[in-house]
Amino acid sequence: MLYKYNMYTESEYDHILKALGNSTRRAILDSIKDNPKTTSQLCSLLSELDRCTVMQHLDVLEKADLIIIKHQGKHRWNYINLLPIKEIHDRWIRKYSFEALDVLSKMKKDLE
Amino acid sequence: MLYKYNMYTESEYDHILKALGNSTRRAILDSIKDNPKTTSQLCSLLSELDRCTVMQHLDVLEKADLIIIKHQGKHRWNYINLLPIKEIHDRWIRKYSFEALDVLSKMKKDLE
Repeated sequence: MLYKYNMYTESEYDHILKALGNSTRRAILDSIKDNPKTTSQLCSLLSELDRCTVMQHLDVLEKADLIIIKHQGKHRWNYINLLPIKEIHDRWIRKYSFEALDVLSKMKKDLE
Repeated sequence: MLYKYNMYTESEYDHILKALGNSTRRAILDSIKDNPKTTSQLCSLLSELDRCTVMQHLDVLEKADLIIIKHQGKHRWNYINLLPIKEIHDRWIRKYSFEALDVLSKMKKDLE
């Protein structure tokens, strides 16, 4: 390989990106990005899926280090872990200024 | 779905994350993040792969909007496109300050 990154191994990157590469798992992360939710709350939000499927998605997210689970009494709280997402970003973007990318991003939206 | 994001569709997110979910394609992005490279230069760097395989990886990256290709005479120059990576970041992290995440990231590295 041409490049070694130090926080996550390439194999961990595979897990993180595979976990993010599914729209239901992205929707779960969207719904907990501001506040954690219990597994029951997530099952209610994703009512088109059975509980077992939701649990499988949460398991993939946990193994990819994208969520952190805390047990409180009967409840299982799911917190987003932003570090893997930050690492993906920093691997390729860190040195560029965010202001410059914001300008590019706005230009692209204006053009569309 | 619980959330709609406006720059890339969920289907485009699938392509972007699938493209990033392969260590060879990540290595290609690593190698062009500071300077573009021609397809021949990338084939030399990835000498364990045949040219056809490298071209297939570049095709996946281009379809995912992660590289932009410019033709100049006989050369095909491959430029990284950071917008999809920035969008992944902004979808979940934008509102958090980078300073806070940097502290967290350093704490985690110190603990390990």
